[in-house]
Amino acid sequence: MKVFDELNPPARLLLGPGPSPVHPRVMRALAAPVIGHLDPELIRLLDETRGLLRDVFRTSNDLALAVSGTGMAGMESVLGSLLEPGDRLVVCAAGFFGQRMGELAGRMGVAVTKVEKEWGEVFTPEEVDTAVAGAKPKAIAIVHAETSTGALQPMDGLGDVAHRHDALLIVDCVTSLGGAPVLVDQWGVDAAYSGSQKCLGCPPGMAPVTLSPRARQAMAARSRPAHGWYLDLDLLERYWGGDRAYHHTISSTLVYALREGLRLVVEEGLEARWERHRTNAEMLWDGLEALGLVLHVPDPERRIPSLTTVHVPDGVDEAEVRGRLRDEYGIEIGAGLGPLKGKVWRIGLMGHGSQKANVILLLAALVDLLKRP
Amino acid sequence: MKVFDELNPPARLLLGPGPSPVHPRVMRALAAPVIGHLDPELIRLLDETRGLLRDVFRTSNDLALAVSGTGMAGMESVLGSLLEPGDRLVVCAAGFFGQRMGELAGRMGVAVTKVEKEWGEVFTPEEVDTAVAGAKPKAIAIVHAETSTGALQPMDGLGDVAHRHDALLIVDCVTSLGGAPVLVDQWGVDAAYSGSQKCLGCPPGMAPVTLSPRARQAMAARSRPAHGWYLDLDLLERYWGGDRAYHHTISSTLVYALREGLRLVVEEGLEARWERHRTNAEMLWDGLEALGLVLHVPDPERRIPSLTTVHVPDGVDEAEVRGRLRDEYGIEIGAGLGPLKGKVWRIGLMGHGSQKANVILLLAALVDLLKRP
Repeated sequence: MKVFDELNPPARLLLGPGPSPVHPRVMRALAAPVIGHLDPELIRLLDETRGLLRDVFRTSNDLALAVSGTGMAGMESVLGSLLEPGDRLVVCAAGFFGQRMGELAGRMGVAVTKVEKEWGEVFTPEEVDTAVAGAKPKAIAIVHAETSTGALQPMDGLGDVAHRHDALLIVDCVTSLGGAPVLVDQWGVDAAYSGSQKCLGCPPGMAPVTLSPRARQAMAARSRPAHGWYLDLDLLERYWGGDRAYHHTISSTLVYALREGLRLVVEEGLEARWERHRTNAEMLWDGLEALGLVLHVPDPERRIPSLTTVHVPDGVDEAEVRGRLRDEYGIEIGAGLGPLKGKVWRIGLMGHGSQKANVILLLAALVDLLKRP
Repeated sequence: MKVFDELNPPARLLLGPGPSPVHPRVMRALAAPVIGHLDPELIRLLDETRGLLRDVFRTSNDLALAVSGTGMAGMESVLGSLLEPGDRLVVCAAGFFGQRMGELAGRMGVAVTKVEKEWGEVFTPEEVDTAVAGAKPKAIAIVHAETSTGALQPMDGLGDVAHRHDALLIVDCVTSLGGAPVLVDQWGVDAAYSGSQKCLGCPPGMAPVTLSPRARQAMAARSRPAHGWYLDLDLLERYWGGDRAYHHTISSTLVYALREGLRLVVEEGLEARWERHRTNAEMLWDGLEALGLVLHVPDPERRIPSLTTVHVPDGVDEAEVRGRLRDEYGIEIGAGLGPLKGKVWRIGLMGHGSQKANVILLLAALVDLLKRP
């Protein structure tokens, strides 16, 4: 049996689509002693985390918790807990993660009506209304910040559309929570999920979720148990907020990290944090355009402040530039997905990573590697 | 918005059913810098982890990986990836986790034939053979180390029974892997899953899984996609061992910890580690009996070395004793589950926690709290 060498991973500046740079205080939280999933002290920390999640989601929902998995587990937990075979879901898909919502729901036996647009576009309330009117769905699913395209979906009016048709509004805010306004109650969102490793600045492994009272009623009215067991929000809520019935052995380590990341968000203040992400993004956008590069989403108001997609210039080998950024500068950025593969780079300024110094360093490195003036 | 106090969890001596004490080297691994899920360095660490998992599972199976969730996620990933609605599963259930396997499979639309025995008993190959002969199942599921009862299932002959009936053998070794012999190839096991936070001595959050070539054939022959998406072993294998297609953002932090925990297992040597767990368990058993306490599993050969169930003496408030152990001694032990609730304590000597000093300390504390001579 081979033991392998001592662990020695490189330090990377994480400016891709996530994970993002972890704040030193969150790293320190990882070193706290592991305790049991039913320890009164852990239960207290879960209660506090619940309160912090409500603040960060801008909601008064009782149900706010973190699924023990990544953002994809958050997506599956919401879809699988609210929908059952035969239900209809309208999915607004203008990117990889919108498509995935449809794929996951389809696996569950849910009837999916997909409304598609070009990757990088967003939906108007009227477009959603038209799609919903014919379909009479139980829920509408939409991505707030489409990590594959860099497009930020305007949310005003979507809650009204959903509720007028007696449908639930499900929102993916994996890349926006903590980096751009996510106003669950004000927008009339019934279910939202996110991930710990984007604008919350924690390691991957936890997926914040919140459900409105309407969503909980829909969950309670199911005719059969949720699709999954590990990701069943009803069972998870019994552990997080109910009788503390043993469900799974939650990782105290990841709870510590998430709680610390959320504390940092609340200490900074959500408005200040959104402003920081916005300001640094604008600096990046200006810098990229000054280098003659073209941003994939033309309208600045439709761009995600935490994730920018920029076109790879003609004649440039995108993988080579990414590799040299990584190997020569220690900087990670992301490649394109789906139809944008090979055509864009994805640059994240998320959480602790959204800093002027990182913007300047990346731009300078691109000047070098792209031989721009 | 309330920020809450600085993180300050207590140091507990974790002698319950898991999580277990984390080795200092594993704690240190948590502090390594987070890197991306597609970083070449992380891919290299995944390859090494795969090799270490094969060693620890005692298998030459190509598919060995860790699901990004706890042991329960491991259970669901195996059942949901191998079985589909209409398939029949024989579940041998003599405890909480055997029952759960049946519950999870039932949710998936699998037809479940449950063979039940008293909590604490184990199954003979003949008993399993009889159950299987009538049912003609696609798979047989059994718990190797039933954490709810302390009973260790003898595995000899079960693989033969399964394969004679052309069924897959699925084994839960959450509490045994790394603490007692788990011989996947020798036993003819087709699918095994475990958890990081038991005898591997890591924080919770990763679930090692291995599939035999027969199990992979069964997975490939499904008529529809796996039950779940996040826990789909086919998709996970493409990421861990195939074309590295993005599936989810694996937590480098938890990979570091698991790899370090596995390195420690391999450095110690599996036989030496099993022997350590066995020797310290015997010391515990002798000590408990010397205090006049009665072990729930009478035959020492049928006891799990890493998890001991002991009867609560008449007239003793089990919760009070557990609470005082925690508050006065900083020691966590576990309560009983299901029919054993209030009747037993569950004492874990797992991974780094299996040490003579811990046995002596716990026994001395029990002498004090139970007022034993």
